Amino acid sequence: MLKLYGMSASGNCHKVKLLLQQLQMPYQWQEVDILKGESRVENFLAMNPGGQVPTLEIEAGKYLAESNAILCYLAEGTPYYSSDPYLKAQTLSWMFYEQYSHEPYIAVARFICKFLSPGNDRLSELPHLHERGYKALQVMQQHLLNNDFLVGNTYSIADIALYAYTHCAEEGGFKLDTFPAIKTWLSRIEQQDRFVKMIN
Amino acid sequence: MLKLYGMSASGNCHKVKLLLQQLQMPYQWQEVDILKGESRVENFLAMNPGGQVPTLEIEAGKYLAESNAILCYLAEGTPYYSSDPYLKAQTLSWMFYEQYSHEPYIAVARFICKFLSPGNDRLSELPHLHERGYKALQVMQQHLLNNDFLVGNTYSIADIALYAYTHCAEEGGFKLDTFPAIKTWLSRIEQQDRFVKMIN
Repeated sequence: MLKLYGMSASGNCHKVKLLLQQLQMPYQWQEVDILKGESRVENFLAMNPGGQVPTLEIEAGKYLAESNAILCYLAEGTPYYSSDPYLKAQTLSWMFYEQYSHEPYIAVARFICKFLSPGNDRLSELPHLHERGYKALQVMQQHLLNNDFLVGNTYSIADIALYAYTHCAEEGGFKLDTFPAIKTWLSRIEQQDRFVKMIN
Repeated sequence: MLKLYGMSASGNCHKVKLLLQQLQMPYQWQEVDILKGESRVENFLAMNPGGQVPTLEIEAGKYLAESNAILCYLAEGTPYYSSDPYLKAQTLSWMFYEQYSHEPYIAVARFICKFLSPGNDRLSELPHLHERGYKALQVMQQHLLNNDFLVGNTYSIADIALYAYTHCAEEGGFKLDTFPAIKTWLSRIEQQDRFVKMIN
């Protein structure tokens, strides 16, 4: 059976949990508290030298790292990942966008606000994170003004990947009120069959 | 014919140029100087709202953004991108790793050292960028100690993606002498058929 090493409050981990639920694939969840360094111990690093969650154990000795690579692996051949070459590439394009232009600002701002103490030095990063994060949200808003979903007007792993940290962006101090198309899209995702909330 | 909008000194753009050359696919190159804001003008943003290079024009009105998504699109069905589900997922895993844990440190350090003036405020970012960049290099070094290439011991788009900014890491102040397996791997890539250097 698939085994997913993850932290419940992590958006990257929620992506995989949500897809597994929607694909109705049985799996075992193993909680890993990265804040306590549990992904930096020898046993974990042997599975994933990057020391990151989520990590998927496909079978003993066969592991896969990187949330969006895991989504692609699990969704291949299903309606959640188009088989059309251009739509498939657009799905990947949004997922690389998420990891490069969205997550490093929106997820990191949430991490600082939610998990660090109010006197922590890293609070000084927030203005920069907000500036870059709002740019990422603006690109999504512009696209979603004319599209129900990110790719091919069908719910896909691109939506799952971008939902992860967008839906909890306000925990990092972002205001979503000026992004109505994003708010409608978030609701649309939450109405999908077998949707599960992130444990927060 | 494919048209590639790119900047010659960008590792992300070199990735796509190298693959097109190795696939022997004809294409037209359009130089875009992002330092002069040429990717932030209306015409460019209509193709790619993120304002980033490379951007691939597949045909009029049909564009693709994100270097690694472009690599996947072009390499699908070729020996540069395995069709085996697990190897394919591992290829993606390394490419997401590149965009999240490698490029933001190693490419950004190079950008600061190469393109900004010596008095620029951003030089203060270098110690942090070096710390994180060395972590990324250590993960590569560990893997390459026992493997000729990143995935399945075959040259693939994962190697192309990671080569881009690793081969010019020293321009950002990184020392590669303590990473002999990486240096051997860089040479191995440069010996591949139809390899082209980055114009630097």
